[in-house]
Amino acid sequence: MKSDGSKKPVISRTRLDPEERREQILGAALEAFHVKGYGQTSVRDLGQAVGMSVAGMYHYFPTKEDILFAIIDNSVDRLVLGLEGARASADSPEDRLRAMLAETVRIVIEHRAEIRILIDNADKLPTERQEQIRRKRAESAAMVRAELERLRAAGRLADHLDLNVITFSINGMANWVYHWYRPEGPMGVGELTDQMSDIFLNGILR
Amino acid sequence: MKSDGSKKPVISRTRLDPEERREQILGAALEAFHVKGYGQTSVRDLGQAVGMSVAGMYHYFPTKEDILFAIIDNSVDRLVLGLEGARASADSPEDRLRAMLAETVRIVIEHRAEIRILIDNADKLPTERQEQIRRKRAESAAMVRAELERLRAAGRLADHLDLNVITFSINGMANWVYHWYRPEGPMGVGELTDQMSDIFLNGILR
Repeated sequence: MKSDGSKKPVISRTRLDPEERREQILGAALEAFHVKGYGQTSVRDLGQAVGMSVAGMYHYFPTKEDILFAIIDNSVDRLVLGLEGARASADSPEDRLRAMLAETVRIVIEHRAEIRILIDNADKLPTERQEQIRRKRAESAAMVRAELERLRAAGRLADHLDLNVITFSINGMANWVYHWYRPEGPMGVGELTDQMSDIFLNGILR
Repeated sequence: MKSDGSKKPVISRTRLDPEERREQILGAALEAFHVKGYGQTSVRDLGQAVGMSVAGMYHYFPTKEDILFAIIDNSVDRLVLGLEGARASADSPEDRLRAMLAETVRIVIEHRAEIRILIDNADKLPTERQEQIRRKRAESAAMVRAELERLRAAGRLADHLDLNVITFSINGMANWVYHWYRPEGPMGVGELTDQMSDIFLNGILR
């Protein structure tokens, strides 16, 4: 088993192509921001985690804020894409709302660290980038709202309920999952999302 | 209007008694943690905000973590006390749940910075203190749960719904309010909490 002196293949870190490097840095940042917090993590810490100098890191992400933005932008894209897929998978407003709630919850569970960084740290970005993120989040809120408006037009929504309160209530239920639900516990994700959809839809339909 | 040379009364900072000093430091920390983030704020920053040296701060709070703990512990006490008051104010499980949801939402709105620090940063505390906070939060969850159990015993709760999913859904709706609701907007707090109670109770009752 000992080396006989022949050259062994070495996977060198420098062999990573730029895209892989970028992913590697983002993965290390995701972990560090989630565990230690954004403010407590330095670019130097992240460089150490991936075996790069601060100067080397600079080539990929000039500032820590650029890393934060990349993570948050990814997560918002993931949510928007997920909602689009969910919407396309169902035929009625009610089923589309169920599918969108379920997909949001699945993303929150599967990408817990990323979602938490989005929720806790989006306001650490400079105004212009916050605005970019806000626009994408507004897009996903508008998808939910469009289905609620269809239900209202069909006379199926409780008349006195405000669409903002409804939209943010569904958001709150779905996003909060990252604080308490653990997939290794007794309840499967499918059962969880079914129950949440039932509570939500019973809550708003007349 | 110019001073005529007579001695003007000066409110000296050193006149604050220790309890006032403590409150002053906590107020400055609340603001700084909320705006800049916990990780981005140093004890030195906070000392500057209240006109104290790092050594002077040490007398009140030996570490930044002690300040974080004091804020978080306050906020959890506030929530538990609020829930106890709300529970005592109503006679049926349904009305107690309404009152508890409304009180939670009111606290989240009135103490937005404090609640946000609780939600975002409780996991930055050392394990033993996290455990203290966790116990108090479990106490408030148990108050909600007790009312849900009464509804279930009376056969009024939709049979298939899990009490954990219900409890955390109400928590999610109520806590999320700090992300979106602004009291200066068109909807009053009373209207907001009524609508949220309607969604929630319609959602869980059979």
